[in-house]
Amino acid sequence: MIPAQFIAQKRDGLAQSASDIQAFIKGLLAGTVTEYQMTAWLMAAYLQDLNEEETWALTSAMLNSGKILGLPSVKRPKIDKHSTGGVGDKISICLAPLVASQGVAVPMISGRGLGHTGGTLDKLEAIEGYQTRLDAKRFETIVRTVGTSMIGQTDELAPADRTIYGLRDVTATVESIPLITASILSKKLAEGIDGLVLDVKVGRGAFMHTLPRARRLAELLVDVGTRAGKRVVALVTDMNTPIGRTIGNALETREAIEILRNLGPADTRELTLVLGVEMLMLAGVTRSAKDARDRLVKALASGEAFECFARMVKAHGGNTSMVEDTDKLPTTKQRVAVLAKFSGWVSAIDPMQLAQVALELGAGRLRADQKIDPAVGITLSAKVAEHVEVGQPLGYIHVHSKKAGADMVDRVHAAFTIRKTRPKESPLVLVRVPKTGKR
Amino acid sequence: MIPAQFIAQKRDGLAQSASDIQAFIKGLLAGTVTEYQMTAWLMAAYLQDLNEEETWALTSAMLNSGKILGLPSVKRPKIDKHSTGGVGDKISICLAPLVASQGVAVPMISGRGLGHTGGTLDKLEAIEGYQTRLDAKRFETIVRTVGTSMIGQTDELAPADRTIYGLRDVTATVESIPLITASILSKKLAEGIDGLVLDVKVGRGAFMHTLPRARRLAELLVDVGTRAGKRVVALVTDMNTPIGRTIGNALETREAIEILRNLGPADTRELTLVLGVEMLMLAGVTRSAKDARDRLVKALASGEAFECFARMVKAHGGNTSMVEDTDKLPTTKQRVAVLAKFSGWVSAIDPMQLAQVALELGAGRLRADQKIDPAVGITLSAKVAEHVEVGQPLGYIHVHSKKAGADMVDRVHAAFTIRKTRPKESPLVLVRVPKTGKR
Repeated sequence: MIPAQFIAQKRDGLAQSASDIQAFIKGLLAGTVTEYQMTAWLMAAYLQDLNEEETWALTSAMLNSGKILGLPSVKRPKIDKHSTGGVGDKISICLAPLVASQGVAVPMISGRGLGHTGGTLDKLEAIEGYQTRLDAKRFETIVRTVGTSMIGQTDELAPADRTIYGLRDVTATVESIPLITASILSKKLAEGIDGLVLDVKVGRGAFMHTLPRARRLAELLVDVGTRAGKRVVALVTDMNTPIGRTIGNALETREAIEILRNLGPADTRELTLVLGVEMLMLAGVTRSAKDARDRLVKALASGEAFECFARMVKAHGGNTSMVEDTDKLPTTKQRVAVLAKFSGWVSAIDPMQLAQVALELGAGRLRADQKIDPAVGITLSAKVAEHVEVGQPLGYIHVHSKKAGADMVDRVHAAFTIRKTRPKESPLVLVRVPKTGKR
Repeated sequence: MIPAQFIAQKRDGLAQSASDIQAFIKGLLAGTVTEYQMTAWLMAAYLQDLNEEETWALTSAMLNSGKILGLPSVKRPKIDKHSTGGVGDKISICLAPLVASQGVAVPMISGRGLGHTGGTLDKLEAIEGYQTRLDAKRFETIVRTVGTSMIGQTDELAPADRTIYGLRDVTATVESIPLITASILSKKLAEGIDGLVLDVKVGRGAFMHTLPRARRLAELLVDVGTRAGKRVVALVTDMNTPIGRTIGNALETREAIEILRNLGPADTRELTLVLGVEMLMLAGVTRSAKDARDRLVKALASGEAFECFARMVKAHGGNTSMVEDTDKLPTTKQRVAVLAKFSGWVSAIDPMQLAQVALELGAGRLRADQKIDPAVGITLSAKVAEHVEVGQPLGYIHVHSKKAGADMVDRVHAAFTIRKTRPKESPLVLVRVPKTGKR
């Protein structure tokens, strides 16, 4: 593999061999392939695309660049979930303990947020003392004893992905379906899982703006994951409006805990259940979707799921009194109301607009070294397909000063579209890959 | 200009503003744009193309990254020639003094060869003592007093081109018409010339393999050069067979000197005259192509052109006895004959095949730090459209050991296609841009 010739192949739209792809990635880590050669290839890959085999070769090369966890002491089926990211997406926090409470091991290694709002780790860290940096041994112990553990990426797993992602981020090569696929799967496969459920978001608040692109990403993820010998299902879900009623780290953790307490917004609960059903079925807990759903509904009602979460937080050194009483989670001094200027039906809420406000409030970061403020964020009093009257609150901005909140009111208001007629409801799950069976 | 956004624009096939292109190039030199961002953009530019305005903006940014010579003391019109590179292309060495002998200043800054055979500088350095590294002051003095000076690129002229070319070379982004255009013109415009004649090679032995691509390069070079306020003409010339009868540094210098002595191969002479006519007319020496040609033919016959060359070599510290007696140029101990295996007409000679042999003999380099052997090379006894008999020499391999030569015989032989019928002669100049006038 001669780097310049390898780059030329992809530039010319030719398919590349697995062994060459492997050598190129190895070379990057060894320093015989330079970063400027990598980014030239990444741009060629972005514009000329990779086929399924190439994507699998890339995934495999990135996966094998580091350690792969075995979790040999965990005897239960190991199933994880990954979401491609949306606004208000706190599903992992309630989903992992819910599924774990039903006999499935959920070893979840998550990233931090880059861009609008925080990632799962940032949300969990709103709980005082919660440790996201545990070594592999401790991670395995918690997964075995509690059923789930949620930690951050370590330097040992898929180091090539970290290097490559860092380069993609600054060279406009992020939004490539094969590159996204390889990045997601190389990290997830390193967890030593048996199966994976993917939540591929589509819409205004997602990476994938169109259904065809989201469907292709879902298909490629399933194809490549299956090549890796894993049971994989992907759901393409709607991301045209924020998930649930909260955007911001502590606010989202609070909402996730409400779900575990059999409360919380209907859409957050439904997405949790839908993904949970897939996970139980991939794990082989049951072969009936109805039975899977019944078990999950029961686990929420009985407190089993909540208990599992509380035990996980404890095992991670977190302050469980914040879990028992979510009012103890970090809050802001001020809540500035955003009031409806007309009466009507909420027909749309722009997730990106709200995410941008949340980012500017301090709920997210643009650079990895930026600190996140766990308390700030936005809560939604009105959701799509709900009716509002003039002067009624659409939502609240959670900020430390009234001034900071007042500055954002118009922008939050502008995120809402209010119409005279009730909007048609859109389905939550748009596509399932595979269409049926193989659960 | 935010680098990642700038890269994304080109990735998406959008036209980019001159000020953004300028800022990107400035950023590269200042270190605020990284090399890995540059190569991602170069690949996007390769695949999505640049329009004429963008190419001019890039040329101008690269030109302005360094010093631009004024040559204020040179009062004669300053015209240069540039060739996109071919096999056996020694034209500059005879053309510059020929044109300079007719009242035109030819300030020629050349590169070294990378790839098959040496560049003009490598060929000149076959003359003992010839200095290619002179400062700008000395260069100007020689151009003023002798009429022409041929030196190597300095770090001061178009430094951005050097950085970018180095990156393109290892990222498979060399063969882009706009990037080639910007690279050539940024260096040539830095010479402070009034006009430029471009020899765009097309065919098996050239960068541009097809006439449409060569034509587009010629047109873009003329368009962008004209935007820069220069008089520019481009000729697309045939490069399907080696130029002249020599490949290798001292051998080519010897052939160029033969041309200046009113001898030498017909094709080398014709190309020299054709380009010289364009240069005299751009300089305004005459408005008649016939008159221009007559002057040049006379300058070759009278020795004026040769005298000019000898004076230039002397001004550069070169051993003029080697010019007076070319047998004193470096030679090899051995000449191994390559004999025809059948009788017939030479219908083709593959230039790349011979260039590869010359490279392996040591006439060229693949890396900038490699040394060149001035003496080695190939001479052609038979040219296209000449008849050969079995056992008659097709050419000679000039090497230091019989063994080294014997190893190459079959490959040199294989470069020749011999047919029963006489081949149709192909024209030397295929396209002129502009088609007519504007000379």
